[in-house]
Amino acid sequence: MVNSTTLHLHPDRLFPSDEKVRSIARNLYEQIKDLPIISPHGHTDPRWFAYDEPFGNASELLIRPDHYVFRMLYSQGISLESLGIRRQDGATVEQDPRKIWHLLAKNYHLFRGTPSRIWLDTVFHDVFGLRTMLNEKSADLYYDHITEMLTTPAFRPRALMDRFNIELICTTEGALDTLPHHQAMQGTPMQSRVITSFRPDDVVDASREDFVENIQKLAELTGQDTQSWTGYLQALRLRREYFRTLGATATDHGHPTARTANLSVSECEKLFAICLSGQSSEEQQELFRAQMLTELAGMSIEDGMVMQIHPGAHRNHNSVIFNNFGRDKGADIPSQTEYVQALKPMLEKYGNDPRLSIILFTLDETTYARELAPLAGHYPSLKLGPAWWFHDSPEGMIRFRHQTTETAGFYNTVGFNDDTRAFLSIPARHDVARRIDCRFLAELISQHRINEDEGVELAFDLTYRLAKKAYKLDK
Amino acid sequence: MVNSTTLHLHPDRLFPSDEKVRSIARNLYEQIKDLPIISPHGHTDPRWFAYDEPFGNASELLIRPDHYVFRMLYSQGISLESLGIRRQDGATVEQDPRKIWHLLAKNYHLFRGTPSRIWLDTVFHDVFGLRTMLNEKSADLYYDHITEMLTTPAFRPRALMDRFNIELICTTEGALDTLPHHQAMQGTPMQSRVITSFRPDDVVDASREDFVENIQKLAELTGQDTQSWTGYLQALRLRREYFRTLGATATDHGHPTARTANLSVSECEKLFAICLSGQSSEEQQELFRAQMLTELAGMSIEDGMVMQIHPGAHRNHNSVIFNNFGRDKGADIPSQTEYVQALKPMLEKYGNDPRLSIILFTLDETTYARELAPLAGHYPSLKLGPAWWFHDSPEGMIRFRHQTTETAGFYNTVGFNDDTRAFLSIPARHDVARRIDCRFLAELISQHRINEDEGVELAFDLTYRLAKKAYKLDK
Amino acid sequence: MVNSTTLHLHPDRLFPSDEKVRSIARNLYEQIKDLPIISPHGHTDPRWFAYDEPFGNASELLIRPDHYVFRMLYSQGISLESLGIRRQDGATVEQDPRKIWHLLAKNYHLFRGTPSRIWLDTVFHDVFGLRTMLNEKSADLYYDHITEMLTTPAFRPRALMDRFNIELICTTEGALDTLPHHQAMQGTPMQSRVITSFRPDDVVDASREDFVENIQKLAELTGQDTQSWTGYLQALRLRREYFRTLGATATDHGHPTARTANLSVSECEKLFAICLSGQSSEEQQELFRAQMLTELAGMSIEDGMVMQIHPGAHRNHNSVIFNNFGRDKGADIPSQTEYVQALKPMLEKYGNDPRLSIILFTLDETTYARELAPLAGHYPSLKLGPAWWFHDSPEGMIRFRHQTTETAGFYNTVGFNDDTRAFLSIPARHDVARRIDCRFLAELISQHRINEDEGVELAFDLTYRLAKKAYKLDK
Repeated sequence: MVNSTTLHLHPDRLFPSDEKVRSIARNLYEQIKDLPIISPHGHTDPRWFAYDEPFGNASELLIRPDHYVFRMLYSQGISLESLGIRRQDGATVEQDPRKIWHLLAKNYHLFRGTPSRIWLDTVFHDVFGLRTMLNEKSADLYYDHITEMLTTPAFRPRALMDRFNIELICTTEGALDTLPHHQAMQGTPMQSRVITSFRPDDVVDASREDFVENIQKLAELTGQDTQSWTGYLQALRLRREYFRTLGATATDHGHPTARTANLSVSECEKLFAICLSGQSSEEQQELFRAQMLTELAGMSIEDGMVMQIHPGAHRNHNSVIFNNFGRDKGADIPSQTEYVQALKPMLEKYGNDPRLSIILFTLDETTYARELAPLAGHYPSLKLGPAWWFHDSPEGMIRFRHQTTETAGFYNTVGFNDDTRAFLSIPARHDVARRIDCRFLAELISQHRINEDEGVELAFDLTYRLAKKAYKLDK
Repeated sequence: MVNSTTLHLHPDRLFPSDEKVRSIARNLYEQIKDLPIISPHGHTDPRWFAYDEPFGNASELLIRPDHYVFRMLYSQGISLESLGIRRQDGATVEQDPRKIWHLLAKNYHLFRGTPSRIWLDTVFHDVFGLRTMLNEKSADLYYDHITEMLTTPAFRPRALMDRFNIELICTTEGALDTLPHHQAMQGTPMQSRVITSFRPDDVVDASREDFVENIQKLAELTGQDTQSWTGYLQALRLRREYFRTLGATATDHGHPTARTANLSVSECEKLFAICLSGQSSEEQQELFRAQMLTELAGMSIEDGMVMQIHPGAHRNHNSVIFNNFGRDKGADIPSQTEYVQALKPMLEKYGNDPRLSIILFTLDETTYARELAPLAGHYPSLKLGPAWWFHDSPEGMIRFRHQTTETAGFYNTVGFNDDTRAFLSIPARHDVARRIDCRFLAELISQHRINEDEGVELAFDLTYRLAKKAYKLDK
Repeated sequence: MVNSTTLHLHPDRLFPSDEKVRSIARNLYEQIKDLPIISPHGHTDPRWFAYDEPFGNASELLIRPDHYVFRMLYSQGISLESLGIRRQDGATVEQDPRKIWHLLAKNYHLFRGTPSRIWLDTVFHDVFGLRTMLNEKSADLYYDHITEMLTTPAFRPRALMDRFNIELICTTEGALDTLPHHQAMQGTPMQSRVITSFRPDDVVDASREDFVENIQKLAELTGQDTQSWTGYLQALRLRREYFRTLGATATDHGHPTARTANLSVSECEKLFAICLSGQSSEEQQELFRAQMLTELAGMSIEDGMVMQIHPGAHRNHNSVIFNNFGRDKGADIPSQTEYVQALKPMLEKYGNDPRLSIILFTLDETTYARELAPLAGHYPSLKLGPAWWFHDSPEGMIRFRHQTTETAGFYNTVGFNDDTRAFLSIPARHDVARRIDCRFLAELISQHRINEDEGVELAFDLTYRLAKKAYKLDK
């Protein structure tokens, strides 16, 4: 019997209960479950693949970098200090990784019904071969076993790349990054499997305290006069070019909103000067980000890079946590996001150019059926990214398909993104996506909306082909 | 075996997979599937019914007028020129309808999972008797067969009216239309089966470039002094009266928002004068539309016409397409729509009058449970129109029922609208609605929330009775 | 056979149809269905429990106080006068409760698919033992039977408390209430089972016409100088203390929005003075309510009271109804509600304090996955209240679980609230919640996302333990 002390991954997990639909889903899944993983957008550390050093201990690997995990623990009154999260002021935090691991083990019931539970259980079961549920009793067994395994060659990053059948993974680096780790991979088997993406938020977002300094650094890196509007744009072009030499096919933009603008050159020059002066207002900073999305779309037409827009996160909502612990500590909260008015200036200028390819993401599911699917179902330049972040979950993914497919179809979507820092969870995340897509296709088949042949073809498309095509990884 | 080369319409399509629920749904559907079609709101061309001339070729009939079809093709980089869509500047576009048909055939996979696929397949199968799937190989067979059939008497509009079992269909005409085609139907069997609806947007929306001219035409048509507020209102009353002589029971209003206003007469006079001057601001134009909804509600109380409000479309979002090809080219995008504040001024004045009947539509599904169902579940003047436009789809319809029924009940809804220009798809569209309603009722029955007798009664109500009652077609 | 004339409550009602999932749901439900009812938030009348007098007739008990019932009847053109709702001007309304009952009976089909139908049928069947459906034919039978039963001792409030297995129920009283009925319960068996909650809207909302007068009354009750900011705050502290002596563990706040503020003391003093002057603007009133939420959160940290926030209702939307019949007549309409910006000032100040416990509710389901689950899944002070008001329904509850669980988990939720004035419906409402929670858990189990042991534990938590813990009723 399967009870709460056994860790069992049921082969039919996440499939619907109805036997007819389940068997269709299972059949589809069988045909695509072993396809290579294409991970076209994420935040893994290129050092791992460049230097292939062992990961640390269980807590260091699975708790500290995973804000999904510690945000839930924090929400129940467990301090970040007790989880070993480093404070900005250097004050003491828990140092004993075993103690930290026990906190997760003791509170593992909090994750019931969450995607973290699915990902962690899959990592425990498939990657580490564990067969008992994580709880207080099994905490030491887990800690010792995982930490021991991490010392073995089979658990080095490159070995895991092979074991996970990752054909290609994209990391994300800032515009000022010199990409030393990607350089280090040149000439290794990783060169063609780990590529960078260009994320220029640090030189585009004038609200950052380091913006002016970043523009100066951009000058140093490119030899351009970045105090002038044209020099600044040219510097960005050169950085894009450099990123492309290390494989990049895509850019990424994490703005608070999806706003775009279409100012005249003289307006741009004036606005850029104000931003550089450090005297810009919030509205001017927003307008500058808006204009830059349009400029960057223009550059994408020139150089063929695919543009990803990830708007709508209110970053660092909890200023106490931000001041004490810094960014990315689980306190980013989605906000309502508008696309129809916001994207219009950019689309007016470039939206009908079939050379342009923009992948839109959202944290605001209300826009799936109302705004995003109608936009992507019309403009040749627009595609829809998969369910993102909080919505990268079984329910989130199924809502995405239910709410976008009828208007945008499948072929205006781009396959799955794991968007994670948690390298070990990548196969689990892709597996969830594959299962949910097969479930959705099985629903359509069982309701006689598509036939089985089409279902199989779509399962391959959603798992593999669309990601390669949308991110121009098939060239 | 059913594979991708067979065109098969499964008798249980769109029903849930679970055998218990499916058999309940099937049973309900059997009882209502052959009921006559009431089509109380749509955009078919009255010429068809007045003169009964043959339709043209396959592309002319099924692609060119259907923005659902060409928007999807356009979204994948297929130019409107290659689809034969006429340019405003008269530049050459594809003239060969067979070539155009091949573009659809070759790209028919793009429609997988969309309602267009269901409608088209049903038209191919049921109307034209085709039994092979549309694809590149079958493209010529399709083109020749359909084009051939269209030359036969059985495919003339009136023969199809009978074959489709359409008891009554409403077209939609502007306030300045003299309704010659409806006049031509007087004394024919079509007189009682094809009626008009009054859509005064062209004389109410001061943002239109032809507004001032339209108000002048309104004077000519009615003999009223439309430069004065009272003359203008009187002219509208006379046009409504004229429409009613040709059967109209309803008006229709397609405003960007649901905003209403309740100004004093002197404020109205001033605002109208500004609008007539051609100097009105966007806000004044919006306020004028808002005031006119309230005025038109008042007229509905006087003359008994049912009022339909279809707000929330951002029309002609793509100005490049608009400039080159004009309106209705698949570039209308829904926007967030607010009802609670927006309708309050009109409801304050007229909302409690049981003689008034307003049917509310939305493109913003977030308002179903939050705003529309609570409003319709209280105000005697308000009813909810069915899932509309992008949401006139299996998933859209089931969301509508799931999100409105608990608060508004079934009896504050009004049955189905096909709202289409695509005459041949009307039976398919009503069939989808009937299947989805039966599916929803079957869910309620299988969960023991209503009993089977009630389910049968509701199936009849949703399919036939509610539409006739709500649109006052049962008088 | 079950037809429309039999009143039958199927033992598997509200469970999914699929036999596998249904049997899991049934099994879970069997284990928790008889757990005592904890009703931590609602609007029952403390007089009932204090004096244990018989209820009146069927209409007086089941129609007049239930705005769910009469709003639906009103929406279909049945006047409130004919339902016996008292007019403010004292004009005659229907006096014959039997006639009123017939109106409900004749129109009972309007409630098909609504939660009112489930609640009423359950009351008819389980509380009154009726076995025929309510309709015109059975109207007199119903009226006579129910009215007769109400005269018997078994139908007195305290007997029903026992029969309904209500362990504890919280009423809601305004800050100026002297709680005489709760006083009267001291020393009776009701003392530990019926407790009050502190709802200070009347002394916090400066938009009320009686605000200035209320602040004066607050002074009289507490002996504080409520014309000064500190005296006013101290008076609130004293009232909270008084409420706690009669068992209160929670406060409740029904603001139009979720806005909070964090002003300096001098700004507060100025703002309070303006509000007291009766000259405050709408924006100042909103800001004062916003500031008061933060002040009250601070008091909750001091005295340990749990804070409930119920924002987003546009009260008395229909001014005709409000002027003629007063508040709570079914014309409250939900509005879009924003939480991320709105709560930030309060959360900045107190949000990381684990002593603070705030339970957030919403009428805007779009915030479940986008705002509320991410907030509650991070801040230690925040928990999510259950699906509320219009969403306290089978579909509303299942949407709540589907949209919050993946990000907030189960343990940042607080069990069920019935929030009702309709005492007899309390067991029915809790039964619906228990069934839907078991259905949701059964889905997770059948999809192998949790195991059966966990499902059982969660069913107990959601039904009983979480409510006691969140409302500090387990002390």
